Amino acid sequence: MNVDLPSWVADLALPANVRDDADAMRYALALARANVRAGSGGPFAAMVVHDATQRIVSVGVNLVTTEQCSVLHAEIVAIIRASHAMQSWDLHANGATTLFTTAEPCAMCMGAIPWSGVRRVVIGARDQDVRSIGFDEGAKPEQWVKDLRGRGIDVVRDVLRDEAKQVLEQYVSGGGLIYNAVPPSSNIST
Amino acid sequence: MNVDLPSWVADLALPANVRDDADAMRYALALARANVRAGSGGPFAAMVVHDATQRIVSVGVNLVTTEQCSVLHAEIVAIIRASHAMQSWDLHANGATTLFTTAEPCAMCMGAIPWSGVRRVVIGARDQDVRSIGFDEGAKPEQWVKDLRGRGIDVVRDVLRDEAKQVLEQYVSGGGLIYNAVPPSSNIST
Repeated sequence: MNVDLPSWVADLALPANVRDDADAMRYALALARANVRAGSGGPFAAMVVHDATQRIVSVGVNLVTTEQCSVLHAEIVAIIRASHAMQSWDLHANGATTLFTTAEPCAMCMGAIPWSGVRRVVIGARDQDVRSIGFDEGAKPEQWVKDLRGRGIDVVRDVLRDEAKQVLEQYVSGGGLIYNAVPPSSNIST
Repeated sequence: MNVDLPSWVADLALPANVRDDADAMRYALALARANVRAGSGGPFAAMVVHDATQRIVSVGVNLVTTEQCSVLHAEIVAIIRASHAMQSWDLHANGATTLFTTAEPCAMCMGAIPWSGVRRVVIGARDQDVRSIGFDEGAKPEQWVKDLRGRGIDVVRDVLRDEAKQVLEQYVSGGGLIYNAVPPSSNIST
C-alpha cells in the first residue's frame, strides 16, 4: 500500500539527510508552503527521519482535497510512505525514527503515532494555531504529551512555530478549504 | 486513493443492502472472522452503509500485517474505500452514512470519525475486550461518546458484543500477532 505525492515534490530537491530538528522542520515547512501554493491540499506537511543516520525515510503532505480522502493528513501520508519504503508496519524496524510535523497532530494522527513505531515527534505549530483557522482537530486526551511519553515516545514542540503559523495563515488568506465534515452548528472546538 | 481488499472478500458474496444494524453487524463479523481464518490481518472489520437506502457503500478489514502498514485498521480501510467509491472526502456527500465496526475504535480511528462525515457509529466489542487480548488502543478522551454526539455523530454500542468478543478470542487462540509497535515495558494501557 502506498500513496503518491504531488509531482511538484520532486522539484523541491529535498536532500537525502537532515542536519538537525530545525533543519528537518525547515524542509517540512517548505513542503507545507508548496502544498498551499500548488493547491494540492491542506497547509500541513510531515516527515519520517531515521534517527541514527538523519536520513529522510519519507515525506508527506496533506492530500485530503486532491485525493478526496479524509484520512490523508500529512502525518498519515508520511507514515504510509515510510511503511512502504521499509516494508514494515513498524517504523522502528531499522532503529529509532522521528516524525516531524508542521502542526500538532489532530486526534486521528495523535492516535496513529503509537501504532507507527516512531519514538519521537517534533512539532511546529500548536493545536490552537490550527483550530484558530477553523479546523476541528477533534477531542484529544488532555494529557497527550504525558500519554505519548508513557509509551516511550518523546515529544518536542514549538520548533519554528511562527513560520508554521504563517503557512496556516497563507492557506486561509488564499481561500483554502476548511474541510470539516461536521456542520459548524454542531461543531465543538475543545 | 484506494486500498485493495483480500481476494476472499468476494467469496463471502455480501448483499448490496443490509436490513438493520444487527444484520450489518453480522456481515461485518463474518468479514472479521474470515480475516482471522485467512490470516490476512487483525480480528477487525468495518462497513460504511448509506442510511436512507441501507446500501453497503464499502467494507474494510484490518490489513496491518499483510499490507505492512500500521494505519490500515478496518475502519480506516472502510473510510478510504467509501471515499473512493463516492469520490468525496465527505461521506455525507450523498446523505447520511453509518460506520459499523466490530470493535470500539482505537484512538486513531476515533479521531478519523469526525473528519469522515459519517453521522452514526455502530460498535460490537468494547474497548476493554480489545485491550484484554493485548492491543494498546491508545489514549482516548474519557468522554468520547459525548464528544462524538456533540459533533452530531450518534453512537450505538454492544451490538452483537458477545459474537464480536469471540472473534477476538479466535485470533488469540490461533496465534494472531498483537502488532503493538511500542515495547511492552513502556506500554500503558489506560
